[in-house]
Amino acid sequence: MDRIPILRMGKFLLVTIQIDLYDRLATNLESDLVNMVNKTGARGVLIDISALSIVDSFMGRILGNIGTMSKIMDAEAVVVGMQPAVAITLIELGLELKGVHTALNVEKGMELLHEKISFDEDTLDEADYENNSE
Amino acid sequence: MDRIPILRMGKFLLVTIQIDLYDRLATNLESDLVNMVNKTGARGVLIDISALSIVDSFMGRILGNIGTMSKIMDAEAVVVGMQPAVAITLIELGLELKGVHTALNVEKGMELLHEKISFDEDTLDEADYENNSE
Repeated sequence: MDRIPILRMGKFLLVTIQIDLYDRLATNLESDLVNMVNKTGARGVLIDISALSIVDSFMGRILGNIGTMSKIMDAEAVVVGMQPAVAITLIELGLELKGVHTALNVEKGMELLHEKISFDEDTLDEADYENNSE
Repeated sequence: MDRIPILRMGKFLLVTIQIDLYDRLATNLESDLVNMVNKTGARGVLIDISALSIVDSFMGRILGNIGTMSKIMDAEAVVVGMQPAVAITLIELGLELKGVHTALNVEKGMELLHEKISFDEDTLDEADYENNSE
């Protein structure tokens, strides 16, 4: 398999990682995701890793990269379904996944994204209001 | 990998099939799905096969099984993201996927499920109304 499918669900994109990412698969995923965010104007990216029972430093870096890339493209990244052993390994590897939000499962991840987006929109509205009232 | 992750999204379950299903993986998926429908009371099952570029008779039968099982458990099954080559192969194999709905992508599949469920609920409401008015 060359590509991991990216599913569009309304304002969000969903990626389920089920197999170990080797080099080309990972770089394909990164570029596909950035292109999809650009094309669809998605506001959030959900990455489900519930099928992963082990994680290495390469995988941790990819997750971090996706988070940073999404942020630059004005979309929030949420990693969902992390298994306890994976969380322990990531910390032991010194990877804190900065810039990436986490949630227990896809539903909670979606709630988190909805909150973030409505918060952003509120702040924008206020900024508009202040600009208009000046 | 022993299991394909099943994601819960509100009333629906979402499964992304990214690798070829061998025997144990397929039977695990079937039993996991039926258990999840039972546990969560899900009304619909979305099966994304956009990552599959080839399909064999075994895979076709599994998809058919999942459709029939879901129906017995009072949930609709929708296969989404089928590639043109896969559709051609399925027909050449004589597998028409009876009892399984299809949609072009996850979003359209969700719309279809919403329509089906609201239609069911309308019919139920009418039945209730008729029962009450008797």
